[in-house]
Amino acid sequence: VSVAPASLEQELRARFGDELVLRGVPPLYLSDATEARGLHGNADAVVLPRTAEEVADVVAWCYEHGAPLTPRGGGTGFAGGAVPLEGVVLGLERLKAVRSLDPELWRMEVEAGVTTLDVRRRARESGLLFPPDPGAAEQSQIGGNVATNAGGPHAFKYGVTGDWVTGIEAVVAPGELVQVGGAIRKDVAGYDLASLLVGSEGTLGVITSVWLRLTPAPEAVAPVVSLHDGTMSGCEALASVLGSGLPVAALEYLDPETVRRAADAFPVPLERGGFMVLVDVDGSTEEVARLRAEVHEAVSEGSLFLWAPESAAEIAALWRWRDGVSIAVQVERGGKVSEDIVVPFDRLGEAIEETLAIGARHDLPACSWGHAGDGNLHSTFLVDPGEPAQVARAEAASEELFDLAARLGGSVSGEHGLGLVKGGQLRRQWAPAALALHDAIKAAFDPAGLLNPGKKR
Amino acid sequence: VSVAPASLEQELRARFGDELVLRGVPPLYLSDATEARGLHGNADAVVLPRTAEEVADVVAWCYEHGAPLTPRGGGTGFAGGAVPLEGVVLGLERLKAVRSLDPELWRMEVEAGVTTLDVRRRARESGLLFPPDPGAAEQSQIGGNVATNAGGPHAFKYGVTGDWVTGIEAVVAPGELVQVGGAIRKDVAGYDLASLLVGSEGTLGVITSVWLRLTPAPEAVAPVVSLHDGTMSGCEALASVLGSGLPVAALEYLDPETVRRAADAFPVPLERGGFMVLVDVDGSTEEVARLRAEVHEAVSEGSLFLWAPESAAEIAALWRWRDGVSIAVQVERGGKVSEDIVVPFDRLGEAIEETLAIGARHDLPACSWGHAGDGNLHSTFLVDPGEPAQVARAEAASEELFDLAARLGGSVSGEHGLGLVKGGQLRRQWAPAALALHDAIKAAFDPAGLLNPGKKR
Repeated sequence: VSVAPASLEQELRARFGDELVLRGVPPLYLSDATEARGLHGNADAVVLPRTAEEVADVVAWCYEHGAPLTPRGGGTGFAGGAVPLEGVVLGLERLKAVRSLDPELWRMEVEAGVTTLDVRRRARESGLLFPPDPGAAEQSQIGGNVATNAGGPHAFKYGVTGDWVTGIEAVVAPGELVQVGGAIRKDVAGYDLASLLVGSEGTLGVITSVWLRLTPAPEAVAPVVSLHDGTMSGCEALASVLGSGLPVAALEYLDPETVRRAADAFPVPLERGGFMVLVDVDGSTEEVARLRAEVHEAVSEGSLFLWAPESAAEIAALWRWRDGVSIAVQVERGGKVSEDIVVPFDRLGEAIEETLAIGARHDLPACSWGHAGDGNLHSTFLVDPGEPAQVARAEAASEELFDLAARLGGSVSGEHGLGLVKGGQLRRQWAPAALALHDAIKAAFDPAGLLNPGKKR
Repeated sequence: VSVAPASLEQELRARFGDELVLRGVPPLYLSDATEARGLHGNADAVVLPRTAEEVADVVAWCYEHGAPLTPRGGGTGFAGGAVPLEGVVLGLERLKAVRSLDPELWRMEVEAGVTTLDVRRRARESGLLFPPDPGAAEQSQIGGNVATNAGGPHAFKYGVTGDWVTGIEAVVAPGELVQVGGAIRKDVAGYDLASLLVGSEGTLGVITSVWLRLTPAPEAVAPVVSLHDGTMSGCEALASVLGSGLPVAALEYLDPETVRRAADAFPVPLERGGFMVLVDVDGSTEEVARLRAEVHEAVSEGSLFLWAPESAAEIAALWRWRDGVSIAVQVERGGKVSEDIVVPFDRLGEAIEETLAIGARHDLPACSWGHAGDGNLHSTFLVDPGEPAQVARAEAASEELFDLAARLGGSVSGEHGLGLVKGGQLRRQWAPAALALHDAIKAAFDPAGLLNPGKKR
């Protein structure tokens, strides 16, 4: 039984009422952070269920009526995973309950719509840490973080979002609420369905609630910032930190083109530009003091600038600046096409240089920054999103980036996922037999192909 | 084209030669650690390929000829996952190459047949740590560790084997060698096929090689052992460590019935028995000194005994003893049925007490020990493996254990997997819709049902 798009909102309202079904489709629900590259979607209705059971009812209704549905968290994604192509937008924003928080047991259960900031704040108020820090924490939601397996700077020490998920409650086709895992830290009974849902971008099911493990918050943190004369010497400093075997928490880089564009907002004057290395250490006060000194030594040789802020205010200002880099580089043209490729650490310098060369070939300003320790770049081409020719050149440039990542033994995506914008790219890194398994999993979970169609492949 | 069991060895030899196909089936290839509960399998041929390509050829041949195959690592499993029921045993023991080791980049690639001990030793010789320590390290192989997602005491701080795998090379049906991930630390491009292969017990594919990430080895380690007057006060000590927010590396327990049976071999005299808490801390020398003092304080209230060995020899002796507990408790009757259930940490005391009550109801000596911080018990019933009535009573007792785990919101398996011995148990913790997805994944990966048939469900 298929419903005509035009009457989808009406039929949904007849079934679920005004409380759940919006009147019309506000533009907010048609885009995510890919707006900066001019991406906008289409949808016929927006449904905002209040409970997991209502999510199940909506999915069941959509499955019964052949209506495609796009689950939506905070809409902060960079791959267009939450940009709908047609049908129903299923917003999770009303599922905001912290179902449980047990500080003494290092765990909490939160519904999908709780913001990343709230998860981190609730943990911190209990002396605990929820380490994933993918950015845009005020707006992004934990359900979306799990559905994309979001990363962030501190993934180097602490791993990505999925590493902190011990259980998932999700609605799977044709509308069943299931739970795998829970308030437990180990489970090898069944196939790892939880890891399969993590990062599946809403194409295998709709995550309604997650059990998270937490860890004791470190007593102290201390970043060390250095500037180096170009990419080669910057990468030597990065390699020196890693090669010294220092258990740092984050190992970030910003290439000279990024530093130049973001320097004005840096918390202290940057007299000259260069390649920036940002190392964060955490632990007990004594441990942090020792590690900071060792990091200082590892990065200082030939460095142009060194800054190791000590006050909480300065440290917070540094990370606010780091969070804002993605926006700062956009100023020049109003938008950007930014891809999150991954390479083995020893190929990082090559990938940074090649990003600039690709930009030059396509007549676009380029820059990159990212999670050096994880070999995860944000390779970026600056565009005016209102200029289709620029966007088209940037997309052609991105194709070369994806090819580069695969050629260097890496991945086309380290944290954004495939979404809409990397459709078709998985074949660059997987053999046909692996792709066939990918498709078979999708078919097993979503035989009618209604869950976030057009994404993740 | 199906081959009669009687001619399987002959036909395999015709195709692969004497070098790869054993004459007859040595008993070694028919059992694993479940021999202690009297389990023995059946097979018609043993093939020992030397390379990943030969593994692919063997799987292709089996798929073509309808021959069931059971992949085999070190045979140290406790669930019968490597115990064949029929057909071909595919031993990975000849795939022993360390394909790469990059200490400065904290990573290595090793073939499936490399022992856990060798992986850990190679890492340690480079100043690095491969944290998973599932026990039986001399015999167990990394491929089997990954295929079961093996745990161990230090999983509390460091996570299980799968958390250290960044890439997998595996043979999937009908005989294709594929690679997912690699020498990279992040990858969210495709569905998480790697996590699906991890813990799949050879039922989805045959792992031939793995990329592992490593971490800097801690400068110092220090265990603290305490004895407490019974399970309740012991669990209070455990909760005190966790509730104090101490980032310990391992948080182990041994119940009074276990301590009594293993006390004679303890490195120092244990004047009286009791409930043992074993906490391990690691880090820099200063950090370890501070943490050890804090752990001491957390566990000392009401403790009967405290021991914090400082010399490397004493510490090694303690862990050798801990590794030997599983064997020590067997002495009484010659065998045991031991299940690795998981419960939320706050239900641990209940599960420990209930293990004893279940044993009593089935007229069997019982005890438990395990990874307290992860809520992972080794609930054990002592049996004479030559007495089928005892084994049958123990298996009935295990059913009650699995029911207990599910009832407390836990899992029927934290590290051993389902294998043969927990067939049918997954339904206790998963809803029918989740079980259907489990079966659909199996059907997608192994349409002919030839990969380790009868296991993992």
